[in-house]
Amino acid sequence: MNLLDKTIASISGQNIDIRNQAKERLDQLIMPHWALGKLMDLALDLAGMTETVKPEVKRKRIVTMAGDHGITVAGVSQFPTDVTVSMIAGFLNGVAGVNVLARQAGTDVNVVDMGVAGDLSGFPQGAIIDRKVAPGTNNFAEGPAMSESRQFRRLKWYSVALEFAESTDVFGTGDMGIGNTSPSSAIVATLCDLPVADVTGRGTGLDDEQLQNKIAVLEQGIAINKPDSNDPIDVLSKVGGYEIAGIAGLILGAASLKKPVVVDGFISTAGALLAGRIAPKSRDYMIASHRSVEIGQVAALADLGKEALLDLGFRLGEGTGAAVAMNLVEGAVAILTEMATFAEAGVSEAL
Amino acid sequence: MNLLDKTIASISGQNIDIRNQAKERLDQLIMPHWALGKLMDLALDLAGMTETVKPEVKRKRIVTMAGDHGITVAGVSQFPTDVTVSMIAGFLNGVAGVNVLARQAGTDVNVVDMGVAGDLSGFPQGAIIDRKVAPGTNNFAEGPAMSESRQFRRLKWYSVALEFAESTDVFGTGDMGIGNTSPSSAIVATLCDLPVADVTGRGTGLDDEQLQNKIAVLEQGIAINKPDSNDPIDVLSKVGGYEIAGIAGLILGAASLKKPVVVDGFISTAGALLAGRIAPKSRDYMIASHRSVEIGQVAALADLGKEALLDLGFRLGEGTGAAVAMNLVEGAVAILTEMATFAEAGVSEAL
Repeated sequence: MNLLDKTIASISGQNIDIRNQAKERLDQLIMPHWALGKLMDLALDLAGMTETVKPEVKRKRIVTMAGDHGITVAGVSQFPTDVTVSMIAGFLNGVAGVNVLARQAGTDVNVVDMGVAGDLSGFPQGAIIDRKVAPGTNNFAEGPAMSESRQFRRLKWYSVALEFAESTDVFGTGDMGIGNTSPSSAIVATLCDLPVADVTGRGTGLDDEQLQNKIAVLEQGIAINKPDSNDPIDVLSKVGGYEIAGIAGLILGAASLKKPVVVDGFISTAGALLAGRIAPKSRDYMIASHRSVEIGQVAALADLGKEALLDLGFRLGEGTGAAVAMNLVEGAVAILTEMATFAEAGVSEAL
Repeated sequence: MNLLDKTIASISGQNIDIRNQAKERLDQLIMPHWALGKLMDLALDLAGMTETVKPEVKRKRIVTMAGDHGITVAGVSQFPTDVTVSMIAGFLNGVAGVNVLARQAGTDVNVVDMGVAGDLSGFPQGAIIDRKVAPGTNNFAEGPAMSESRQFRRLKWYSVALEFAESTDVFGTGDMGIGNTSPSSAIVATLCDLPVADVTGRGTGLDDEQLQNKIAVLEQGIAINKPDSNDPIDVLSKVGGYEIAGIAGLILGAASLKKPVVVDGFISTAGALLAGRIAPKSRDYMIASHRSVEIGQVAALADLGKEALLDLGFRLGEGTGAAVAMNLVEGAVAILTEMATFAEAGVSEAL
C-alpha cells in the first residue's frame, strides 16, 4: 500500500462518544441553551475530531500551497504569472495578507512550492518547503493540466501535514497561484455537475468581457479533457493545479491525524471538495472558514455539507480567511473548556 | 453646561483627511483591490475615528452594564431575576461567556452596576463599578420605568468611558439583566416607529404563548407611557433600563474621546440607537459586532446605518459578540499597518 492509500485508509470519522460528552457539558453552561450558536457547533466538531473534550488549539499552522497555471496564457487572469514569485517573497517577509492576519491570530504560516513556474533559487534554503511537481501546469484549454497522472499519484503531495504532525494542533489551508480560480471553477463544475458559468467569478478583477472569455476557455478545457467526475484524481490531473493538489493533500493528512483543518476560500474549498471525494470521512475534519466573493465556492460548500463561519467580503486566498477563523476555533474551545456549568456556578436554570 | 451636555457637544465625526490617507495606502496593498473587503472598510473607520493611520488597538476593554427590570413580574423572561447577581459572580470569577471570549481576544472585562435589584454586598469592594441609579426599574407595563427622568439625566451614567480613557484604546459594550430584551424591544419599536411584534423575539427562550404575552405586555407599556420618539431620554426613562442607559453612555463617552466602541448584540444596539439619537455623530464611532438572533436588532442596525461584521447565531449578550469582534478590529489594523504596498514589495500590479 502506498502512502496515499495508507493515509486515506487511516481516516475515520469524528468520535461520536466524545462529541456527546462535549454536548452534555455545553448543554449545561451558564447561559440560555446554545446561546453561542455556531461556536458551540464548532466546539462539538473540535471535540469529535480530536477525541477529547479539552481540545488543544494552541499551535496553529496555515500551509500556503503555491503553484502556477499554464491556462493564464488564455487571458483568464488580470495579473502576470511572475506575481506568484513576488507574493512568495511577501509571505517570507511577513508582509502579505495571510501573514498579518495569521500573526493577529497567533498562527504560523508555511509556504510550499507545489508547482511554481518562476525562479525560486534566490530565496534562502529551507524557507520554502519544496514539493515541486513541475514548473506550473500545462494549459488545460488545450490538453491535460498535468502530464502524467499516474506518476503524480505516487508523489507525496499529501504528506506535508504528516511532517508537521508533532508541531501542530490545528491546520489551515492557503493558496497562491496566479490564475488559480480557473482550475478551481473547472473542478467544481465537474465534480458538482454544474455549468461553468454558474461557478466562475471575476478572480482578481476581470471585467464582463474578460469573464465571458474565462468561461469559454474553461468550457473548452472541460470539453477537450473530459474529466471523469467519478474519479477525483482524474479531475485534478486534467483541469486542476498543483497547489490545489497540495491543499487536498494537506486536508487528507490532517484528517488522518485527527487534526482539525480550517479551509480557506474558493481555491481551498475546491481542494476540500477533491479531498472529500477521495476520502469522504475527511469532511469530518474540515472547518469552512469564510464565504468567498467567488461564486463557485457556494456550490462546493453545499456539496461538502458545510456552512462558512465568516462572511467578510474576502476574495484574496493565501489562507487569509483561515487565519481570521483561527480566532473562532480558539473561542469555541474556550467556551467548551473555560465556561462554568449552572451547577458549578450555582446559577438558577430556566424556570 | 453639565457633563452630559459637555460630552455630547465634544463629539465630532470621523476625520475625513485621515480616512483618505488610510484609503490611499489600502488601495496600494499587495493584493487585488480591496480583496479583504469588510476588514478594509473597518480599517478606514478605525483610522477616521482615531485620527491616525496607525491606530492603537492593544488595550481593549468590554464594559458590561448590569441592571434589573420590574417588567419581569409580567412573565416576559424565562429566568428569575436573581440570575443577574449569579451571573455577575460568574463575570467576576471569569467563567461566563464574555470572560472566556474576551480572554481569547486579549480583552479586559469590567462590570458596572447600573441598577441591579439583588444584593451585591457579598462581592469584594471595588470588583464591581458602582453607578447604581436604583435597584431595578419599575414595571413599565404599569407606569414609567424610571421614576424621575430629570434627576436621572443629571446622573453620570455616561461617565464610565471617561474614567477608562487613559487605559483603553478600544471599548466594547455588554449587558446583563434578566428581562432586558423587553425594554430593548420597546425602545426600538418607539424610536424606529415599528410594531412591537416586528421587533420582539424569544429572549432567553420563550415559547409561542409566552412570546405573545411579551408582545402584549410591551404594547401595553408603550400605550400607557406614550414615550416621545423625538426625545430619546424620554424613551429611555419610560420604557428603558439602567444598563441600557449605561451602554448609551459608554458609547457617548467613547465617541467624545474619539475611541472606537464595538457594539454587542440586541440590548447594546438598542443602547446605540439611543446614543445615536442623543448625538448623531456618535454613530461614527460605533462598530456593529454581530447579528443577534433577536429580530429587533435588524431594525436598529438599519436605522444606525450599520452592518454587523459577524453572524454566529449568538443570543447571549454580556459583550460576547463584541469580544469575538475585537479580533476583527485587530485584523483590520494589521492590514492597514503591517501589509506592504506594491511599491514597497516590488510586486507587479494588475495588467
